[in-house]
Amino acid sequence: MSRAAAARSPVSPHVREKRRRRREEILHAALRAFRDRGYHATTLEDIAGGLGVRSTALYHYFPDKEAILYACHREGLADVHARVADARARHATAGERLAHVIREHVRVMTETLEGSTLAFEVSALDAAHQAEIIAARDRYERALRSIIAQGIADGEFRPVNPKIAAFAILGAINWIARWYRPEGSVHPPALGAQFAEHLVGGLTCR
Amino acid sequence: MSRAAAARSPVSPHVREKRRRRREEILHAALRAFRDRGYHATTLEDIAGGLGVRSTALYHYFPDKEAILYACHREGLADVHARVADARARHATAGERLAHVIREHVRVMTETLEGSTLAFEVSALDAAHQAEIIAARDRYERALRSIIAQGIADGEFRPVNPKIAAFAILGAINWIARWYRPEGSVHPPALGAQFAEHLVGGLTCR
Repeated sequence: MSRAAAARSPVSPHVREKRRRRREEILHAALRAFRDRGYHATTLEDIAGGLGVRSTALYHYFPDKEAILYACHREGLADVHARVADARARHATAGERLAHVIREHVRVMTETLEGSTLAFEVSALDAAHQAEIIAARDRYERALRSIIAQGIADGEFRPVNPKIAAFAILGAINWIARWYRPEGSVHPPALGAQFAEHLVGGLTCR
Repeated sequence: MSRAAAARSPVSPHVREKRRRRREEILHAALRAFRDRGYHATTLEDIAGGLGVRSTALYHYFPDKEAILYACHREGLADVHARVADARARHATAGERLAHVIREHVRVMTETLEGSTLAFEVSALDAAHQAEIIAARDRYERALRSIIAQGIADGEFRPVNPKIAAFAILGAINWIARWYRPEGSVHPPALGAQFAEHLVGGLTCR
């Protein structure tokens, strides 16, 4: 096959998968660097250094640091939001659904995002990205409130203010980014399980 | 009385009380400005402007902006920590003690500190102040864990990991600074009461 023919040929599934994995590695390295140094102090060289490559290797995937932060935010939120749909499909009661979402959100905070500072860096995004991420967050918050409202309507939860209850849950989960360290003694599945029991139990208990 | 005699005379209780109130007003104005503009973007002129005075009037109380932030941190933490002692003196069970501390911490977050960003600005303190504030926070966290451990030992709470439970509670409370607005629809006593029922109920419930 000539070089021109190769350039025209579609990307093979193997190459596509390799690129997807590389892109994920970049996002993880970036989140680690943001956590260790803070977003503003982190350079593309720091992120590339964490992967043992030169910063020019990142430009194939992302034009700049803001684009990386934006991808982390967007994909993290898409991930947790998708878990709400899973919870609805798999579980019938509000308590089970809420517990599922809490466990999965804790998983995203600890495993996928490596205890990242994601929850705290929206202001570093450019205006259009910031508006998009805030809107996505609002949708996720509304989804949580709607599960809580369902639990109250079904008589499964006490008649709490769903807005306050959702903020208590989100605060507990987002705060993980402040104290959790992957090398510490707390393991993500145990953390997710205890958070789910604590934060759902507090709504069902009379 | 000559002017020299007046300068030597002790400060009257009336003047002392006036100064104390003025100092508090400065701290409140500073917290409002930090919340609205962010700590780094806030100037002494912004804080003075919020009180309708000139920035030179602040120097009688604080040498610079960092000293104001440090005072806010130190006094906020001293306030919540003192509530742990109150809780121990007034209540016998771990559940009542923990509920008392949660309600009071929510009160400090919403009323005294006006939904401040205190929880998020430790890095802006100078090194010595930062170490002192972090140590004070650690003492407060340990006090919470010790109430939770007491509840487990007494058989009142489920056998949770006290460290994780304390972080869930602190995360929910600290997150208030991110969403609470004094002019909004959520009122502090209702917020404190719901947080206490939610976060203590989740530990007692089986």
